[in-house]
Amino acid sequence: ALAAPAIAQTNPKVTWRLTSSFPKSLDTIYGGAEVLSKYVSEATDGNFQIQVFAAGEIVPGLQAADAAAAGTVEACHTVAYYYWGKDPTWALGAAVPFALNARGMNAWHYHGGGIDLFNEFLGTQGLVGYPGGNTGVQMGGWFRKEIKTVADMKGLKMRVGGFAGKVMERLGVVPQQLAGGDIYPALEKGTIDAAEWVGPYDDEKLGFYKVAPYYYYPGWWEGGPTVHAMFNKAAFDGLPKAYQSLLRTACQATDANMLQKYDYLNPSAIKRLVAAGAKLSPFSPEILSACFDESNKVYAEMEASNAPFKKIWESIKAFRAEYFLNAQIAEYNYDTFMMIQQRNGKI
Amino acid sequence: ALAAPAIAQTNPKVTWRLTSSFPKSLDTIYGGAEVLSKYVSEATDGNFQIQVFAAGEIVPGLQAADAAAAGTVEACHTVAYYYWGKDPTWALGAAVPFALNARGMNAWHYHGGGIDLFNEFLGTQGLVGYPGGNTGVQMGGWFRKEIKTVADMKGLKMRVGGFAGKVMERLGVVPQQLAGGDIYPALEKGTIDAAEWVGPYDDEKLGFYKVAPYYYYPGWWEGGPTVHAMFNKAAFDGLPKAYQSLLRTACQATDANMLQKYDYLNPSAIKRLVAAGAKLSPFSPEILSACFDESNKVYAEMEASNAPFKKIWESIKAFRAEYFLNAQIAEYNYDTFMMIQQRNGKI
Repeated sequence: ALAAPAIAQTNPKVTWRLTSSFPKSLDTIYGGAEVLSKYVSEATDGNFQIQVFAAGEIVPGLQAADAAAAGTVEACHTVAYYYWGKDPTWALGAAVPFALNARGMNAWHYHGGGIDLFNEFLGTQGLVGYPGGNTGVQMGGWFRKEIKTVADMKGLKMRVGGFAGKVMERLGVVPQQLAGGDIYPALEKGTIDAAEWVGPYDDEKLGFYKVAPYYYYPGWWEGGPTVHAMFNKAAFDGLPKAYQSLLRTACQATDANMLQKYDYLNPSAIKRLVAAGAKLSPFSPEILSACFDESNKVYAEMEASNAPFKKIWESIKAFRAEYFLNAQIAEYNYDTFMMIQQRNGKI
Repeated sequence: ALAAPAIAQTNPKVTWRLTSSFPKSLDTIYGGAEVLSKYVSEATDGNFQIQVFAAGEIVPGLQAADAAAAGTVEACHTVAYYYWGKDPTWALGAAVPFALNARGMNAWHYHGGGIDLFNEFLGTQGLVGYPGGNTGVQMGGWFRKEIKTVADMKGLKMRVGGFAGKVMERLGVVPQQLAGGDIYPALEKGTIDAAEWVGPYDDEKLGFYKVAPYYYYPGWWEGGPTVHAMFNKAAFDGLPKAYQSLLRTACQATDANMLQKYDYLNPSAIKRLVAAGAKLSPFSPEILSACFDESNKVYAEMEASNAPFKKIWESIKAFRAEYFLNAQIAEYNYDTFMMIQQRNGKI
């Protein structure tokens, strides 16, 4: 029943700028901001515009949250762990080693109090944020030679940052910081021995399989990293309530959409990569266990010295134990059966 | 930058009625429609209202899509496989045995052409639909005694419907149709031997563990069932473009939200159920394989006789093989490692 507009309600003109942490070439993760912008614009007949700028167009990718906090732009699309050097609490909103997978992380954010807990922290930084993307568990990266033991990690020059870099450094790895475009030549020349990037679909574009064919998994430092849409707090608080709600809804849809897109694109990419020469290799149990133990030591140190970190990490940990108990019942058994059929050529 | 409303754009008053297939007591799945209604209302300052009615308030739960198609209501929130008796093609939009899990199903819907393919079919029924919820893989149900072999299934009176009921019938099960409220007394008296419902959080409310303690998994007929929001096609086509877009965005957010809520609620429910006496039992490989083989025979028959079914099923099958190949790499290994830590009390 479409009635005449009895009470006309205006959609005020709002134009925001959003700075992404990603280059346009990473179409799926960069595209998340474009999806968000489209959803918001369409629902308001073009009255609420969010103009999306790629990394570097306004500020460098790793300063996106700073630009939104300062009001240089109203919004950014970024991964919270990029800012962990300021305070490791940042990383908890995105991904930390051996934490939740994508479904678990979303369950915690949306129903386990995660969004509110993390916004309590973001508020102190002048920001408000909502999940706005997820890549699923990432790959562990590309290695020039096989690594089977913790001893093999000693002296390994690996392009890896953040929390994972810190854990690996304690196990002998020499973490390297390199921008995306510099990784391939460094691997080719042997200036570095290994590099982590994202997952099959994104990694394929950079051609790492040609120079570092051992493709390890899983990326234990990113079980299901949340990409965030973050907003300057004053700008967000100044929006009409309807626009605030629309932004939240559009973020939740965008968050789902990115994972859906990766889940659709990664399967065909992994097939092409293997056909092109990538050698799929699981991290050995020895390596995973050493990284798990070392991560727990880092967590203990952070909990002891950082109250906001401890508060959020305790919340994630409590849910993590229950989540991975339940997941091993129906979900794991269903998936396992279907994977066996796949291996046997029955599907 | 919040500017004065230069070009006022009206949100016209629209009031729709939505009939749910679910009772209010199933707060998570019924709640999906309330979430959708809230998202749409808030984003339009209350101008686009979707009034939600529980199963039975306007029409019985299993006639929700018919009511929306006929224009009795503008919208419904339902599961497409309820209507498979009209044409098995309906079921493909929701879940069929041994198909995709929740992430796979969403990837197919949103990026593998699933939404368009299914709407091509729904359009012939006077409807347009979007995913608006997912439960994750369901449990296989509650059994009064153990079943270990296909022979144990012979003569078993089980409350199970639809596609799964047809497959099980061919293996000797006697499918029973019972409304939710009638299941417990039938199990208690032994009028039926087994019953499937949903998963831990919903099953707990009905208390089945007291009378049929063997709780089997996984529900191989519902690896990740999509709950749909469906709209009367003429009503949807008559909406302003902004409202159409808002509805799609709100559906995508609602779809994600339901799975997030189940993923948060099921873990604590399964712990309580086991503490109360539920005996968790995986279906034996013999039973799963027999059901898989029999399902494939049913698919072959349907493909041979039903062109719309064949078209959509071919699309799902092609993606299924790739999806379960990729899923066994990073995702499966990450989850497995975390589950081992859970079992060892390390998380």
